[in-house]
Amino acid sequence: MRFGFFDDKNREYVITRPQTPWPWINYLGNDDFFSLVSNTGGGYSFFKDPRFRRITRFRYNNVPIDDNGKYFYINDNGTVWSPGWKPVKTELDQYECRHGLGYTKIAGTKNNLSAEVTYFVPLDIPVEIQRVKLTNRSTEKKSFKLFSFVEWNLWNALDDMTNFQRNYNIGEVEVEDSAIYHKTEYRERRNHYAFYSANRKMDGFDTDRKSFVGLYNSYADPDVVRNGKSKNSVVHGWSPIASHSFEIELNAGEETELIFVLGYVENKTEEKWETKQVINKAKAKALIQKFRYSEQVEAELKKLKNYWTELLSNYQVKSHDERLDRMVNIWNQYQNMVTFNMSRSASYFESGIGRGMGFRDSNQDLIGFVHLIPEKARERILDLAATQLEDGGAWHQYQPLTKKGNAEIGGNFNDDPLWLILSTTQYIKETGDFPILEEMVPFNNDETKAQSLLDHLNRSFLHVVNNLGPHGLPLIGRADWNDCLNLNCFSTNPDESYQTTGNKKGGVAESVMIAGMFVLYGNDYAELLNYLDKANEAEKVLAEVEKMKNAISKYGWDGKWFLRAYDFFGKKIGSNENEEGRIFIESNGFCTMAEIGVERGWPQQALDSVKKHLDCEYGIVLNNPPYTEYDLSKGEITSYPEGYKENAGIFCHNNPWIMIGETTAGNGDRAFEYYSKICPSYLEEISDLHRTEPYVYAQMIAGKDAWKPGEAKNSWLTGTAAWNFFAVSQYILGIKPEYDGLIVNPCIPKEWDGFSVQRKFRGTEYRIEVTNPNHVSKGLKELWIDGKKIVGNVIPVQKKVVCNVKVVLG
Amino acid sequence: MRFGFFDDKNREYVITRPQTPWPWINYLGNDDFFSLVSNTGGGYSFFKDPRFRRITRFRYNNVPIDDNGKYFYINDNGTVWSPGWKPVKTELDQYECRHGLGYTKIAGTKNNLSAEVTYFVPLDIPVEIQRVKLTNRSTEKKSFKLFSFVEWNLWNALDDMTNFQRNYNIGEVEVEDSAIYHKTEYRERRNHYAFYSANRKMDGFDTDRKSFVGLYNSYADPDVVRNGKSKNSVVHGWSPIASHSFEIELNAGEETELIFVLGYVENKTEEKWETKQVINKAKAKALIQKFRYSEQVEAELKKLKNYWTELLSNYQVKSHDERLDRMVNIWNQYQNMVTFNMSRSASYFESGIGRGMGFRDSNQDLIGFVHLIPEKARERILDLAATQLEDGGAWHQYQPLTKKGNAEIGGNFNDDPLWLILSTTQYIKETGDFPILEEMVPFNNDETKAQSLLDHLNRSFLHVVNNLGPHGLPLIGRADWNDCLNLNCFSTNPDESYQTTGNKKGGVAESVMIAGMFVLYGNDYAELLNYLDKANEAEKVLAEVEKMKNAISKYGWDGKWFLRAYDFFGKKIGSNENEEGRIFIESNGFCTMAEIGVERGWPQQALDSVKKHLDCEYGIVLNNPPYTEYDLSKGEITSYPEGYKENAGIFCHNNPWIMIGETTAGNGDRAFEYYSKICPSYLEEISDLHRTEPYVYAQMIAGKDAWKPGEAKNSWLTGTAAWNFFAVSQYILGIKPEYDGLIVNPCIPKEWDGFSVQRKFRGTEYRIEVTNPNHVSKGLKELWIDGKKIVGNVIPVQKKVVCNVKVVLG
Repeated sequence: MRFGFFDDKNREYVITRPQTPWPWINYLGNDDFFSLVSNTGGGYSFFKDPRFRRITRFRYNNVPIDDNGKYFYINDNGTVWSPGWKPVKTELDQYECRHGLGYTKIAGTKNNLSAEVTYFVPLDIPVEIQRVKLTNRSTEKKSFKLFSFVEWNLWNALDDMTNFQRNYNIGEVEVEDSAIYHKTEYRERRNHYAFYSANRKMDGFDTDRKSFVGLYNSYADPDVVRNGKSKNSVVHGWSPIASHSFEIELNAGEETELIFVLGYVENKTEEKWETKQVINKAKAKALIQKFRYSEQVEAELKKLKNYWTELLSNYQVKSHDERLDRMVNIWNQYQNMVTFNMSRSASYFESGIGRGMGFRDSNQDLIGFVHLIPEKARERILDLAATQLEDGGAWHQYQPLTKKGNAEIGGNFNDDPLWLILSTTQYIKETGDFPILEEMVPFNNDETKAQSLLDHLNRSFLHVVNNLGPHGLPLIGRADWNDCLNLNCFSTNPDESYQTTGNKKGGVAESVMIAGMFVLYGNDYAELLNYLDKANEAEKVLAEVEKMKNAISKYGWDGKWFLRAYDFFGKKIGSNENEEGRIFIESNGFCTMAEIGVERGWPQQALDSVKKHLDCEYGIVLNNPPYTEYDLSKGEITSYPEGYKENAGIFCHNNPWIMIGETTAGNGDRAFEYYSKICPSYLEEISDLHRTEPYVYAQMIAGKDAWKPGEAKNSWLTGTAAWNFFAVSQYILGIKPEYDGLIVNPCIPKEWDGFSVQRKFRGTEYRIEVTNPNHVSKGLKELWIDGKKIVGNVIPVQKKVVCNVKVVLG
Repeated sequence: MRFGFFDDKNREYVITRPQTPWPWINYLGNDDFFSLVSNTGGGYSFFKDPRFRRITRFRYNNVPIDDNGKYFYINDNGTVWSPGWKPVKTELDQYECRHGLGYTKIAGTKNNLSAEVTYFVPLDIPVEIQRVKLTNRSTEKKSFKLFSFVEWNLWNALDDMTNFQRNYNIGEVEVEDSAIYHKTEYRERRNHYAFYSANRKMDGFDTDRKSFVGLYNSYADPDVVRNGKSKNSVVHGWSPIASHSFEIELNAGEETELIFVLGYVENKTEEKWETKQVINKAKAKALIQKFRYSEQVEAELKKLKNYWTELLSNYQVKSHDERLDRMVNIWNQYQNMVTFNMSRSASYFESGIGRGMGFRDSNQDLIGFVHLIPEKARERILDLAATQLEDGGAWHQYQPLTKKGNAEIGGNFNDDPLWLILSTTQYIKETGDFPILEEMVPFNNDETKAQSLLDHLNRSFLHVVNNLGPHGLPLIGRADWNDCLNLNCFSTNPDESYQTTGNKKGGVAESVMIAGMFVLYGNDYAELLNYLDKANEAEKVLAEVEKMKNAISKYGWDGKWFLRAYDFFGKKIGSNENEEGRIFIESNGFCTMAEIGVERGWPQQALDSVKKHLDCEYGIVLNNPPYTEYDLSKGEITSYPEGYKENAGIFCHNNPWIMIGETTAGNGDRAFEYYSKICPSYLEEISDLHRTEPYVYAQMIAGKDAWKPGEAKNSWLTGTAAWNFFAVSQYILGIKPEYDGLIVNPCIPKEWDGFSVQRKFRGTEYRIEVTNPNHVSKGLKELWIDGKKIVGNVIPVQKKVVCNVKVVLG
């Protein structure tokens, strides 16, 4: 069942029923000010850091679900309703939500009165704009009341929901003109406040939640709205909110527009106050002035749309399949931007409190983002490398406000360092920016310990070499990519986290997945060194890679697939010898991508085993058979019910590893079959089962062993976005940036007649036409560049503005 | 305005309107299983630790307020209602909530159907019983549906509200007979589960919140209740709940009764499973059997009532003032028990997550509790002392599950050690249990470092001696009793806590309050040593006390009151020289209790200054004038708006210090005036202003400089309970345990004619009649023990069962 449709022309997903199977959300903001907004107007805002600078309040896992947002209430002669249906839930005559790129438009109609709210965060301005258009569609004059509503968070989101003996005493606001200023704790150490303004003289206001809502009421029936009259309450302590009210008259057919600005301001310490206890509002007033008139709002909205048009023009495909095109051209790239900005911090599943920026996560997110804004990718690489330790290891996370490593989580996730090689080589391939390797980058954020980025990469590589186990395979440390495969943890205490608990000493747990990564990214590293004319060093690297290949050949192959790991005691995991967890996806993904044992046909054999044992209707599960009991020596993976999360769930992040493996092996049909199984636009028809948004990837879909296979969870913030874009754009469609140019090497379903890609690369727009007259999956018969036939599959870097490329497969 | 009345005979507060100005709650449980229950049926349960063993879910600061509880829904032919009004909020024909000691009875009537729910936790059994009586008060037969409802918390309360990417995947239940078993994470490291059973064959059930409530509904209108039919849903992941349903028929006038048991079970690791993946239910079934019949429930309820009758019989007053009697005899002692059990962990203001057991808090809570269950007080003293460090300092908090010091909060609150002297001496005075001093107690929970408890006391004492500042006054450390007077913190970062942030080095901040404490408790310590025939040691202690007195005389007196402190730079705080914070309550409380400078009339002068500068209609504010700006060198105290919390709020905890000071100075009228100003039973008529329960103390009442003076916050878990009981029972009513017997030395308002006290003390029941024929405040004219006149004011320890005492003041 569908709950809306894709409007590809406007790059929008249009939701036509408010009761989606889970709130379907969108993200506003690009730099510092971010908002989450659901299809009914729920959500919240923060500045840079969703834990420490939470601007408005949101209650996760609440009943009613998704009941906090930036809401508008209309009291039309006693009929109370909201344009997004919630929170009032009065049945609407018409409802529509359009999630676009960086904006959301929610429109409702009731009794011939229409209200359309456009929410967006302009480029480079720390505010959320809410433009409210009201139209009288009746044939008579209408008089009604409009109420705005936001609830302030007291800044520290964790403290805000735990520390009431303090927090109920500190709330403070100021009200001036049509603006409500939230200044809790500004009197002390904060140099920032928030405000919520309207561009019209308000007829009333409220800042005290109890006065507005009523002590025992819900957001569905606030006292003030029901009575149609603001109380002009000024809050002291308890729960500050901001609500304006307006008495509005519209003649038949008349339309009016109001502009609301929700903003965030920081002042220098010496400029905090206007007069004693009165905050300095100069910056807020300047921001309010920027959005006084509709034309200003329209101009900023246009800027935002143009920004996205420009960004997305870097990669556009045209195929016979609109589901493919809309994902590649619009939504997957958009999600890549969001994951790049948010890491795993704030979504409707991530509470914005638990996690900072992940070292592993952010390096991977970057591969889906680097072609959009390479400068930001550059900055991120340097930030990440700066949290690396001198031995090549890395803090597993860092806090976005401070950019410092998170000591609570610690390090010793032994795959972490290698991801820096992936992100850096992908960045340089996209940009040709070799000088980044000369940048001096601290270790552990200590400037006195700075070394070149290249040196960081070297230490990343050597961290594996220096941490090998008895089989010559990499020691796994706390965990590799699979955070839940805790081979050294041995946790018996339910009150401790598997990830932060001290590991048991003396074990020899090794990861075949890291081994595969090491070969893959070791080769990438050697390739880079060769480009830098460091052939000697490259040779040394390749010698280590060769050793690792041998170790995998000797100890990493289980007969029909690659082993997953050796445990603390040196016993096999992911082997035919095991009863449960006999085969895993991760090692088979990386070892086939790295083509280990290709001379013996291992990759194809491994891929066939994955197909046989792990594939199902909704994607490839992580392992099988699932674990049915807790195993102290394996940790969190065995804590999940069968078919969920890392215990045989479809963990979408790793599915593209198999897709890429399949393309490497030349199996275009299988690669695309896997792609379409987890790709959300292909799941639109089963939205009632899938539950999460049909326009973005979810982290996990319940696997074949689950109680409800096909049900997805944790949408938006997942490495799935970057990896699927990487797989489809570079391996299936096969347009791959390299140091010297673009490689064209598609691997597609045989039945395709072809497709075309527009790719901007280092200043040139490549218009690539691929035809497939012989219906093959892979292999170039002909390559024409601007009318000239070329041998091989590399389009060298061009100096032209436009370059026309014709590719014939066969 | 009142919202109910005291039923003293039944020891109940009876609430007659559900819409109290804030949820008015009660506590169930005495040992391990605890519940909070509000007057509308809201609240939650936990086992021992509200953070790590949260059984049911509760959302703090929610809208609607207090919307999670153990609810019953009735669907009577389409009319849906709940006996406690919430969550449905259907207007009831009758409503009554009776909060008793350890139980709560909520009764509602709608359309001639009555439902009465009695909630209680039996003594020593880890379950909450809910007895539901249904009566058809109409003249016709009634058929209706009853639905129960609880929502499970996934055990770790913090994780439960932040970690959704995991938690939405792990929920698991089992259903057997009429019991629903919540076994989330039991498959892994947990050895405990919860269950919710009924003593009647259920007609249906639900365990999946979405199925029961409906995705977009509120608890006010669950799908299943509205449709009158359970869905028999079995949850997998998402949000597990437990709901039974029953189709009930009652003839005119007929009554029926159902018993629900909400229980918690721990199994040994080797006994976890019945068969693979099926939990061992043996213990749960045994608990369910215990409450199969009404007689069993009635018997347990009676046991509980008798238990309280017995406990409270240790101290009973009879005066002309029922407001005094009900507080002293019932509610204050009851609150003392609750604060002893909970410390500051779980209330409707404390979220059960932030704080463990406080060293300072628990030692003080003990002085209001020790006469009730001395054995528990003994255990607590030893637990607390075991978290002390070898230098005499102490961890500021410890976790109730592990009893280990909380390293996150740390130590260095320099008043902490002295409170151990207060609690231990009070304990011995109550019990005569001198052998406790020989108990070997670890330092920092390290058994190898155990020393006698007496040695711990000595180190407590010496910790002050070893940490003196330039004026010979005690260095304050992180803070003294006033956690918010942070003289060494100098915090500029709003993202850090004032309490846990590292102190600036090199300061000389000293506390006159600790100085006063040192004199007071140093004298107590010397008195104890003398009782132990350690005169030499006592002399040394007194020499140090004398030095401190001199230091206070020289540097602690400001001319009209006692200084509060010297800051980091050696500047005065709480001095007439200051513009703001000129006078503080704490140092004046302790120095007058310790009678420092009594030869110069200082205590009386200080008390007069307190009266003049700090007293107001609703109590004594902490300091005045309030701070109007943040002061880096004073910290959190200056972060609060004027009149709230430590910044000139009425911080009720310290008011009794002044009351005791007044009794020491002989001012019975003033002492009692202060007592009645903050005593909740005297505030019943202004409940709409006061907001919190009229039967228990609140931590803080907004002060005269506040926006709304008289509004209280943070009821229940506050040292106010113990200190006020201590003040009223030992200093105003003046019945004071000493090593040799009971001292009788009342200090009362002159107009009183007298009063009587029944006090059980070391096995004897003392029936003490006090008459005041000459209308004095203080001073014994005559003391008669069993007909014999005695000189002095000490009743020596008796061997009899009953001892009759007559006291004539004059």
